[in-house]
Amino acid sequence: MSDSLSGGGHTVGFIGLGLMGRPMAMNLHAAGAEVVIHNRSRAVVDALAAEGLAPAHSPREVAERASVVIVMAPDTPAVERIVGAGDGIANGIAAGGLVIDMGTTAVEATRALAETIEDRGAHYVDAPVSGGEIGAKAGTLTIMAGGSEAAVARAMPYFRVMGASTTHVGEVGAGQIAKAANQVIVGLTIGAVAEALALAKRAGADPAKVREALGGGFAASRILEVHGQRMIDGAFTPGGKATTQRKDLQQALDLAASIGLELPATALTRDLYDRLIAAGGGDLDHSGLYTVIDA
Amino acid sequence: MSDSLSGGGHTVGFIGLGLMGRPMAMNLHAAGAEVVIHNRSRAVVDALAAEGLAPAHSPREVAERASVVIVMAPDTPAVERIVGAGDGIANGIAAGGLVIDMGTTAVEATRALAETIEDRGAHYVDAPVSGGEIGAKAGTLTIMAGGSEAAVARAMPYFRVMGASTTHVGEVGAGQIAKAANQVIVGLTIGAVAEALALAKRAGADPAKVREALGGGFAASRILEVHGQRMIDGAFTPGGKATTQRKDLQQALDLAASIGLELPATALTRDLYDRLIAAGGGDLDHSGLYTVIDA
Repeated sequence: MSDSLSGGGHTVGFIGLGLMGRPMAMNLHAAGAEVVIHNRSRAVVDALAAEGLAPAHSPREVAERASVVIVMAPDTPAVERIVGAGDGIANGIAAGGLVIDMGTTAVEATRALAETIEDRGAHYVDAPVSGGEIGAKAGTLTIMAGGSEAAVARAMPYFRVMGASTTHVGEVGAGQIAKAANQVIVGLTIGAVAEALALAKRAGADPAKVREALGGGFAASRILEVHGQRMIDGAFTPGGKATTQRKDLQQALDLAASIGLELPATALTRDLYDRLIAAGGGDLDHSGLYTVIDA
Repeated sequence: MSDSLSGGGHTVGFIGLGLMGRPMAMNLHAAGAEVVIHNRSRAVVDALAAEGLAPAHSPREVAERASVVIVMAPDTPAVERIVGAGDGIANGIAAGGLVIDMGTTAVEATRALAETIEDRGAHYVDAPVSGGEIGAKAGTLTIMAGGSEAAVARAMPYFRVMGASTTHVGEVGAGQIAKAANQVIVGLTIGAVAEALALAKRAGADPAKVREALGGGFAASRILEVHGQRMIDGAFTPGGKATTQRKDLQQALDLAASIGLELPATALTRDLYDRLIAAGGGDLDHSGLYTVIDA
C-alpha cells in the first residue's frame, strides 16, 4: 500500500463496507483520498464517518458526489441493485465517470451492467480480488482487472493503494473470468490437499512430516502451505468462508454451462462443499472441506 | 548433487536403469562410488559398463557384491520380482546389508518386502522421489524416506548425491505414503489448473494473462507455473507420463480403500485419466489431461 492519493484532490466513492470493503475504504482514506461511502446497514457508515469518511444516503448520491465509484458487494444481485436500480449508481453518475466493481460478480451480469453504465457516457471496470480480509487490511490484494486500457489506467492509483499487484487481463468481464478461474483452482486444490493429508494421516504417517516433505517438490502450492497447515491444526476459523467458496464454484459452473463447457472436478468439489454445509460447516474456513474427507 | 562418495570406498548396487534409474546411477558413479548395476534389458547395462559401472547378471549377484542396494523399478510387481524372487536381492544380501527402494511401490507390499529383508538380518528403506527425469539428471530429486533412524542415516550420503532434499517421514512405508499423497496433490492440481484455464480460454479471456494474474495469489502452485504453461502452449511431451500418473492415483485409491477411506476427487481424476488414455493420450505428459477438459 502506498500513500499515492494525498494532495491529488482525489474523491472516490465506496459502496459495500463489509469484511473486505471496510478496510479497503479505510486504506483509500489513509492514502489521502476523500472517500464518499454508502452501505445498506448504517452502523458501519456511522463508524467510518466518525473516522472522517463522508457518508451518503444512497449509491446514487455517492455517484453524484464522486466521479469514480468502487463497489464491493457480496454477490451479483447486490451489485445489480447498487448499480442499476432506481437509487443506483447509473442514475447518479455523470458522463466521463468510472464505476469499478471489485466483488466477485457473474460475467454475463458484469457485461450487462457495463453496458448500462456506458449508456450514461461513463466507464466500467471489473476488478475482483484475491487475498481475503488479511490482504484487504494490509493493502496487498491481488487484483484481476477487465476493461479498456484508459479505464484501467485511471483506476490504477486506487488499485495501487488497495493491492500488491494488478493484472489487466482483458476487456470488461475478463477480470471476472480470471477470478472464476482463481476460485476453481483454490477450491479444487483445497480438495486435493485435503484428500492427500487425510490419506497420509489415516494410513499411519505424520501429516505434518508429509506436508514438509511435499513442500519442496511438484506438489508445492500456497494452499498446501497455508491451508495444509490449517488442516493439520484443525484450525478452521475463517479466513474465507466455505459458503463463499461454494457460491464461487457455482458461479464458475454457471459460466461454464453458458458456453457448453463441462468441468467435472469443479462440479464434484461443489458437491463436497454442499456436504460440508449440510453438516453445519458453512461458516468454517474453506479449508474445513478437510472434515468431509477425514470424517 | 555433491561429490561426497569419493575416497570413501563406497560400493553401491543399482537395479532398474530406466529413465530415472540410469541418471541416478550415473550420478552415484560420478560422485566416486563403485556402482554394481543390473537391468532386465541388457542394452543399458552394456552402455553403462562402457562408462565404468560394474555389470552383474542378477539382483542376487548385485546384493552379493554390494552391501547397499538401490532399486528403481517401474511398479510393485517388478520390485517384488527384484527383491523377493529366487534370483532376487533377498537371496544375495548379507546380514547388516541395506536395501533402498526408490520407486513408487504399494505400501502393503513395501512392508512385506521389508519383512523379507529383515528376516535376512538386513535393513530396508523406502525412499520414493519427486522431480522426474529432469531432477534425476540434475541430482535435485525430492526424496521421501521411510525406515529406522539408523537405516535412513546410512542411506543419506547416497540421497545427498541424487537429491536436493530428503525428509525422513517415519517408519518403513511412510515414504510411500508421502509419495501417494504427493501424487494425489499433483494429479488433482493438474485437473484444477486444466479446468480453470479451459474455462478462461473458452469464456473469452487470454489464458496466459489469467495464469499470470493468478500466480501471485492463493492459486499459486508449481503446477500452475510449470504445467499451466504446458497447457497454454499445448506442449505435452513428457515429463511424467499420463499412464504413470493414472497408476499412481490408482495406487493411492487402493491404499485408501484398504483403510476404509473414500477419496472422491482422486477417484474422479483417475477416471479423467482413463478418458485421456482411452483417447490415445497415455504417452502424453500428465498435463495432457487438459485435452480431456478443453476437448
